[in-house]
Amino acid sequence: NATGSDGESDAAATAAKSIYMVSDGTGWTAEHSVNAALGQFEHCLVDRGCPVHTHMFSGIDDVERLMEIVKQAAKEGAMVAYTLADPSMAESARQACKLWGIPSTDILGPITEAIASHLGVSPSGLPRGAPGRSFPLSDDYFRRIEAIEFTIKQDDGALPQNLNKADIILAGVSRTGKTPLSIYLAQKGYKVANVPIVMGVELPKMLFQVDPEKVFGLTISPVVLQTIRRARAKSLGFTEEVRSNYSEMDYVREELEFARRVFAQNPVWPVIEVTGKAIEETSAVILRLYQDRKHRCSMPRISKRY
Amino acid sequence: NATGSDGESDAAATAAKSIYMVSDGTGWTAEHSVNAALGQFEHCLVDRGCPVHTHMFSGIDDVERLMEIVKQAAKEGAMVAYTLADPSMAESARQACKLWGIPSTDILGPITEAIASHLGVSPSGLPRGAPGRSFPLSDDYFRRIEAIEFTIKQDDGALPQNLNKADIILAGVSRTGKTPLSIYLAQKGYKVANVPIVMGVELPKMLFQVDPEKVFGLTISPVVLQTIRRARAKSLGFTEEVRSNYSEMDYVREELEFARRVFAQNPVWPVIEVTGKAIEETSAVILRLYQDRKHRCSMPRISKRY
Ligand SMILES: Nc1ncnc2c1ncn2[C@@H]1O[C@H](COP(=O)(O)O)[C@@H](O)[C@H]1O
Ligand SMILES: Nc1ncnc2c1ncn2[C@@H]1O[C@H](COP(=O)(O)O)[C@@H](O)[C@H]1O
Ligand SMILES: [Mg+2]
Ligand SMILES: [Mg+2]
Repeated sequence: NATGSDGESDAAATAAKSIYMVSDGTGWTAEHSVNAALGQFEHCLVDRGCPVHTHMFSGIDDVERLMEIVKQAAKEGAMVAYTLADPSMAESARQACKLWGIPSTDILGPITEAIASHLGVSPSGLPRGAPGRSFPLSDDYFRRIEAIEFTIKQDDGALPQNLNKADIILAGVSRTGKTPLSIYLAQKGYKVANVPIVMGVELPKMLFQVDPEKVFGLTISPVVLQTIRRARAKSLGFTEEVRSNYSEMDYVREELEFARRVFAQNPVWPVIEVTGKAIEETSAVILRLYQDRKHRCSMPRISKRY
Repeated sequence: NATGSDGESDAAATAAKSIYMVSDGTGWTAEHSVNAALGQFEHCLVDRGCPVHTHMFSGIDDVERLMEIVKQAAKEGAMVAYTLADPSMAESARQACKLWGIPSTDILGPITEAIASHLGVSPSGLPRGAPGRSFPLSDDYFRRIEAIEFTIKQDDGALPQNLNKADIILAGVSRTGKTPLSIYLAQKGYKVANVPIVMGVELPKMLFQVDPEKVFGLTISPVVLQTIRRARAKSLGFTEEVRSNYSEMDYVREELEFARRVFAQNPVWPVIEVTGKAIEETSAVILRLYQDRKHRCSMPRISKRY
């Protein structure tokens, strides 16, 4: 696109800059960090003429494969971002990139060193998959799995008799993101139930009997909701008739107004605006309020013990 | 514990070192990075006399709250790890920490700068929640939500007639992690179905009619499986009788042997050992194989376009 070469996709492929991510573990930390950093370049990514391709290499725990990847990066003109626990592997990555003239970044090195001097303890230098290490079956591990299984069973208003067992209950009209939000929060160890608000359908009594401090209402702009519902109706292959009842503007507005009245009758429920927010952003807002109500400390925070 | 002070929990609280995490966004990047870095100190965390408490402050986009947090960190003797997109906020954090004599680390600064010079483009400096920015309803967004909804519906062998619509199918005996693995992969945009292998129960015919390249078998050490099943049976309040049939060693071994025979009859299915692996580690192994089979390139990688 930006370059004037032959064939649109060829041109894009030529113009695209590559980022190689190398980890001796899963690669998810590198992916998460690079993804967040790329948020700072949204003004120039794919649609704006400066596409980026990322390539993640995980489980790289020997120097031979590491060198092969660095060579390949040099050929492609890529930069390299790595997370390598073994200091000699990290040093090899640094030096090889320097030798080949490739920009490189050690993503976790600085924070690991800072923690080491804060604790007065040296890092183990062992990758997570190293022989002899094993994943502990901790209480936290079982709690998370239980949260996921609970949350799946409670999706879409199922088993309202269990609402009292949830840590967090999400209520909102169809397509406000209740399901993906519930799952995101479940992964963090919270038992979540979600309850759809549908015009003309009575809400489960249990919703008004549980501790109202754990209920969160979701709201969204009618225009955005219509866009999402249209996409949904199309992908589900709804008939024209059902589709219009579900995604037409009058109906969308009326249903949101119905939800607004439910929320107004339950003023303890915080109402969260999801318009323009990614699932992880709305989740952060919900957890901030949740922790805040639970601990009521001066500055909202989420704390953990290691 | 390690210190000789009064009251066990007081002693632990005194001995615990704090890490403050500050983000203008959700805080998940800082949490993920600090969590991975703490993996390097497992030999000394809570059970080994050097507990760490982390405290995450998200949505911090004004300098007043930032300064309040730094002051609080100074009081607690904490270190500070931050992700702040606005360069003047990042600089304020750095300087304030220096002034108060607190160790601090900018988690995304270095990778963001490296990407900037690689692309030849300046970072926007705008936090993800900044006014005027909004989350794009991209194809990728809808694809992920669809994957999550599909995966929930297919949990635990439900709707076998849909197995052909899955990207990935996981098969294994009870408590090999099929559900949390499915959900983890769904969050990454894959439609996952999981099928329990239960001794004496016929597997759905559809499992043998779909492309065998998308089926993955899960296996686990009998001793670890027994531990997990005992915890499960307890938490579900199984009766002594059901419990023994489910978690007693002979039964566990026989059922794993039954699964092994199913896998042997389907040699195209890779069999993944989950013993001692965290969900995200097994997910990384599965996706590596999945991408590898799909692209058959020289070095297994997972690629994305931005
Ligand atoms: N629990 C852990 N123990 C030791 N190292 C870890 C742990 N979790 C992550 N790491 C290391 O942190 C880096 C990022 O991990 P990953 O996100 O799996 O790629 C790699 O160098 C891993 O070896
Ligand atoms: N899509 C995005 N656009 C701009 N900045 C982002 C984006 N995603 C993450 N960031 C920034 O990356 C850092 C980490 O984000 P978070 O993981 O939400 O705390 C913060 O400074 C965010 O403002
Ligand atoms: Mg839903
Ligand atoms: Mg299951």
